[in-house]
Amino acid sequence: MSERICVIGGGAAGISAASMAKRTNPDAEVTICTEFEDVAYSPCGIPYVIAGEIPEFQRLFLAGPENYAEAGIDLRRETRVSDVDLANQTMTANDEVLEWDKLIIASGFNYKLPEVPGNELDGLTYVKNIRRGIELNETLNNVKKAVVLEASPLGVEMMAALAHRGIETHLVDETAWLLSSVADQDIAEPVQKSLEDLGAQQHYGAKLTRFNGSNGKLTSVGTSQGDVDCDICIIATHKEPDTELARTLGVKIGSTGGIVVNERMETSIPNVYAAGDCVEVPQGYTHVAVQGLTGAHAMQQGRVAGASAGGGNRTYNPVFIPWGMVGGTVQIGGASFGEHLATALGIPYVVGKAQGISRARYFPGVQQVHVKLLAEPGTGKLIGAQMVGGEGVKERADFLAFALKKGTTLEDIAWMENVYSPPIGALYEPMSIAAQNGLAAL
Amino acid sequence: MSERICVIGGGAAGISAASMAKRTNPDAEVTICTEFEDVAYSPCGIPYVIAGEIPEFQRLFLAGPENYAEAGIDLRRETRVSDVDLANQTMTANDEVLEWDKLIIASGFNYKLPEVPGNELDGLTYVKNIRRGIELNETLNNVKKAVVLEASPLGVEMMAALAHRGIETHLVDETAWLLSSVADQDIAEPVQKSLEDLGAQQHYGAKLTRFNGSNGKLTSVGTSQGDVDCDICIIATHKEPDTELARTLGVKIGSTGGIVVNERMETSIPNVYAAGDCVEVPQGYTHVAVQGLTGAHAMQQGRVAGASAGGGNRTYNPVFIPWGMVGGTVQIGGASFGEHLATALGIPYVVGKAQGISRARYFPGVQQVHVKLLAEPGTGKLIGAQMVGGEGVKERADFLAFALKKGTTLEDIAWMENVYSPPIGALYEPMSIAAQNGLAAL
Repeated sequence: MSERICVIGGGAAGISAASMAKRTNPDAEVTICTEFEDVAYSPCGIPYVIAGEIPEFQRLFLAGPENYAEAGIDLRRETRVSDVDLANQTMTANDEVLEWDKLIIASGFNYKLPEVPGNELDGLTYVKNIRRGIELNETLNNVKKAVVLEASPLGVEMMAALAHRGIETHLVDETAWLLSSVADQDIAEPVQKSLEDLGAQQHYGAKLTRFNGSNGKLTSVGTSQGDVDCDICIIATHKEPDTELARTLGVKIGSTGGIVVNERMETSIPNVYAAGDCVEVPQGYTHVAVQGLTGAHAMQQGRVAGASAGGGNRTYNPVFIPWGMVGGTVQIGGASFGEHLATALGIPYVVGKAQGISRARYFPGVQQVHVKLLAEPGTGKLIGAQMVGGEGVKERADFLAFALKKGTTLEDIAWMENVYSPPIGALYEPMSIAAQNGLAAL
Repeated sequence: MSERICVIGGGAAGISAASMAKRTNPDAEVTICTEFEDVAYSPCGIPYVIAGEIPEFQRLFLAGPENYAEAGIDLRRETRVSDVDLANQTMTANDEVLEWDKLIIASGFNYKLPEVPGNELDGLTYVKNIRRGIELNETLNNVKKAVVLEASPLGVEMMAALAHRGIETHLVDETAWLLSSVADQDIAEPVQKSLEDLGAQQHYGAKLTRFNGSNGKLTSVGTSQGDVDCDICIIATHKEPDTELARTLGVKIGSTGGIVVNERMETSIPNVYAAGDCVEVPQGYTHVAVQGLTGAHAMQQGRVAGASAGGGNRTYNPVFIPWGMVGGTVQIGGASFGEHLATALGIPYVVGKAQGISRARYFPGVQQVHVKLLAEPGTGKLIGAQMVGGEGVKERADFLAFALKKGTTLEDIAWMENVYSPPIGALYEPMSIAAQNGLAAL
């Protein structure tokens, strides 16, 4: 009898797990159960449709449900899984009992619910599911004032999107600067300035105290700095792993609240795998567990889980987490961590900083690229990187994450070869200048 | 007495050598002799001023001669060096005899003179020196038809520049495709198409036979495919090392015609160093000697030569040569070599190709990025890379050259982490898809 592989979750991790399982073991019966109506769309695109940069939500869909049938995958939408029975290897999918040989949990995340009075009011909004995104897009036509709760990556994107629509936009964030969970203050500052130029009013150090409402509807957000009137509040809080189902199975949960997996994406229970935002994985430099990474990470983890469940032999490595995004009109990104996190973790470091340029200094469109590299005081080995600038941040973040994985030193980067061509690259690569300055500091 | 360090040549290699020598040994008397009127400008920018993309030649200057005096460097312009006496460590600079303890040769290159009849005619033009560039820019106001000889990097830039000015532009190139000394035909094709769209008529497989003239002035370029009428011909041939002076000293010359140097940029003669386009260096993968690299390479070599002459301890590593440029409206680049060169060198390889994208598929401005990776058949170790596309080619070429140096495999690149953010990066990094396809081919 062919192997039955069930995947719970239809996001990037679930879809890639199912596809890879089927590719690894073409004889397997692969089933995906998702509680939602849609699969195979890009949730990361929702803020950009709301901003009007992408003309319609339909563009975010990659493949229709029919593609899964063609690939031999049984896709079950609007299907809630319950009563997973480990002894008999069964589960209930809506009303039907399904048998499984291998189970892959890809249940994703939820934005952390703010635990303050009024958090049940109408007007608290989450940007995650595309149908809710379409509804939000309509609602916003009648919104005059909005609050974005926390300058997380989603919060930064939503600030720009709302301001771009002409809505009076306020950020409420308890921390001292934007993206403070990943970025250093000096790196975040140009992004804050760019969002301010777009009209987003940012209240840092403002602790959320309550949601105020009238007739069950949100009217203002209460903060330690006073109330902010609004028609709507976008909850862009920390991404918490959704482990509700996983906990009923008794799989081991780690320090971050994510499911613990090994390098084959196996959980603590035989034949049960997990991938994506519901798991935690080791950070490459510290081996401390981290969770809530990017769609690209979810996809890669899904592929490893799917390959493993399909009988393949693939492993997932500790992560150095290249990241990057556009905040306002400025690109920000990095890899591993910056000074703020290194300090918090008690990791000693030296810094090399530089303000470089993206093209020849005289070429039209030349942009500044600010690079900060952290390295071990003794060895000069790279620990992390942070960047802010006009172009090329994504590609440099990829480079730096790869360099970190390869155990690169400042010396290596200071003397790296680089392309010099006036329209696309400067004589001095910004990362090299930063590394040279770091060597001088060593 | 303080050490006397003389540098011959005021290009990227000479200037950086002098600066680094002075920085390494602040007590040294550092002299630069250049036969030209100008230093510290960007010759690479000349085609873009001619194209009208940069409004004036003045923008290409970085620093005036006074900056060198301030830095304690004796800059002598319009100064020709002759009669280098190795026994007494002297040389003649114009009419003055200078004593030296260390000599750095950074005499650069010349475009190879086509050895056909008529090569003395007025109208054969070289794009290298800024004063000649300014003259050319004037001349072009009265030019109707131009020929560019060879689709070298300069030839590609000049084709676009001339066509952009509305001049009837013809390329004459004996080889079968554009940039054939570095790029594969499939990678070059989109650039040829882009230049064609700009109006550049490209004659490949057309061997130069003679220059035809009247009253000493060029009237047409004779080729194996017939004559091409023109008012001017831009000679964009191979960059030959200028070793005229070096040969009088008896320094060892290598297989490419460039000066042989060791990793400290020392020539075969004690206390004589060389750097830049006049030297040859080992290619990283094959250790075969190569010359005629980029301004960034010249600068780095100059720094090593300067550090060595100043008593420092820096080495220059074998090169993996990231390269990149814009041809028409298309970016092209790579690192190490492609299929054409690998085949010519008898190096076995497998290929992984992919057509990826630079941003989310639905995001405005998304561009195709075509990546081709070559790897060793047994180990999967990366040998070289070629790319063509819309954006991010420079940064990916830098990445791939670095990866080559680190002994990276297709497996490493196939599973690398990458930034995914709709406006700046796609879910799947194009290099990773190419590597995955390469693994499938292994």
